[in-house]
Amino acid sequence: MKPIDVVIREVGPRDGLQREAPLELAKRISLIGSLAACGLSAMEVAAFVSERAVPAMSGAATVVAGLPADTDCTWWALVPNLIGAERALEAGIDHLSVTVSSSETYSRRNVGMSVEESVHQALAIAERAPVVDVVISCAFGSPYEAEIRPDSVASLASRFEDAGASVTLADTTGVATPRRLRQVLELVGAGVVGLHLHDTRGTALTNAYSALELGVTRFDTSVGGLGGSPFADDAGGNLATEDLVYLLEDLGYRTGVDLDRLLDVDETLEGWLGRPLPGRVAEAERHHRRRG
Amino acid sequence: MKPIDVVIREVGPRDGLQREAPLELAKRISLIGSLAACGLSAMEVAAFVSERAVPAMSGAATVVAGLPADTDCTWWALVPNLIGAERALEAGIDHLSVTVSSSETYSRRNVGMSVEESVHQALAIAERAPVVDVVISCAFGSPYEAEIRPDSVASLASRFEDAGASVTLADTTGVATPRRLRQVLELVGAGVVGLHLHDTRGTALTNAYSALELGVTRFDTSVGGLGGSPFADDAGGNLATEDLVYLLEDLGYRTGVDLDRLLDVDETLEGWLGRPLPGRVAEAERHHRRRG
Repeated sequence: MKPIDVVIREVGPRDGLQREAPLELAKRISLIGSLAACGLSAMEVAAFVSERAVPAMSGAATVVAGLPADTDCTWWALVPNLIGAERALEAGIDHLSVTVSSSETYSRRNVGMSVEESVHQALAIAERAPVVDVVISCAFGSPYEAEIRPDSVASLASRFEDAGASVTLADTTGVATPRRLRQVLELVGAGVVGLHLHDTRGTALTNAYSALELGVTRFDTSVGGLGGSPFADDAGGNLATEDLVYLLEDLGYRTGVDLDRLLDVDETLEGWLGRPLPGRVAEAERHHRRRG
Repeated sequence: MKPIDVVIREVGPRDGLQREAPLELAKRISLIGSLAACGLSAMEVAAFVSERAVPAMSGAATVVAGLPADTDCTWWALVPNLIGAERALEAGIDHLSVTVSSSETYSRRNVGMSVEESVHQALAIAERAPVVDVVISCAFGSPYEAEIRPDSVASLASRFEDAGASVTLADTTGVATPRRLRQVLELVGAGVVGLHLHDTRGTALTNAYSALELGVTRFDTSVGGLGGSPFADDAGGNLATEDLVYLLEDLGYRTGVDLDRLLDVDETLEGWLGRPLPGRVAEAERHHRRRG
């Protein structure tokens, strides 16, 4: 049987680093190059957001200018609005991701727009840019509403698909479970969406496994499980790239990722950040390497 | 549809505490009482092993004498050999678990017996005690052999079943994956065995989920994911009881366990041990409670 390809979009350089103390630009660019050299086929490398609001993401255009040329990796940038999209396109990156929350309260608190205003922004970006992926945040639950209705997530998703954008469903606060995933994916279509999972309650890998069984083949993950902050409310890290690759390779899926090389990147990154990353395969590897 | 019952055997007071600095007997007995009050239906409470070799498990007979009477919880004790079994029966506990490794090297290094010698010991205990569960360690892989053959695990299991014992398969060093689980469970019979999972590589919950899909309904877990040591080779903690209960309840299985109450026990235990436990639902709850 031909192995099924799974596309992993590495989001460590963006979602992973955005809440960290800013890393030097040279290190961020070096990290991106090392990750691409692991065989990752897609990567979110920058966010064209306010540098004052998110200092860790400053210098987005410089990052894009410094991207390695000798790779097949598809580069993505996050843009918050049409102005950000214009900046990104001008910098030379044409795969843009934009976030729309399915939680009204989360949307107003985090981006100061209603869901509907945010949808219009995303649709305008989809019209303007060559390739757009809309990340629907809080797709499986939010810290504010009692329930996010699967049919409203599906209805949001179809509006973006009609506009020619792809859709990624994000479990922003790590509340998804296999049951909730199934409810949403049955309506949205497991074969077409990507999943962006956070690991607040240790369920991210289990959710990924259950999604694979339903036919999902696109995942956002972060090197070392970076992306959470022990100090932020409801914020668990992203599903760790190594943890997903380890599972996928064992199950016979094809990712193109060199796991050993990725674990080397982890080691470097841990040195830069001065603390162990939360990813579990990397943790097992640390014990193994320490032992020699 | 009638919910399926899942039996969780809490092993925190034994596998969880055995590598910790010894807790006072009164605390260990209090922990057992608190855990039973959460609705857990089975618990491994003591090990009748050498007190010099495993000081954290000293006073097994005192623990058994101090077990709460007002509960339906089934009490289990680990015994390493026939002498331990006699001590346990004398102390008044008649559900005995005994470990047999499916790894020849692991067996010789850890208990100084060949697998075959260890099997004979277990069969002798199965003949002597009313209820015996044989825990087959390294059932999905070992740190020493390249592969543990599923058919040798199945053949071990059937010898114990023929002797009237139940069987639990242990992923001692956390190397199991859904694929390996399926290979072994298809031979051994998912409906009859229990699973004892460790979380060295973050795969324990995913493995439990895949095993549930195959029909496994018995799991050993440890409050807070206790049982690993950051200093021991290849030792990840047990699958955390709360993490499994959280998943099971969401999927509609019935465990009888009061999750909120269990999280209170976590908090007490973390205070006693002076560090956070590795379980992820408990971690999310800590953030939540700190926030107030």
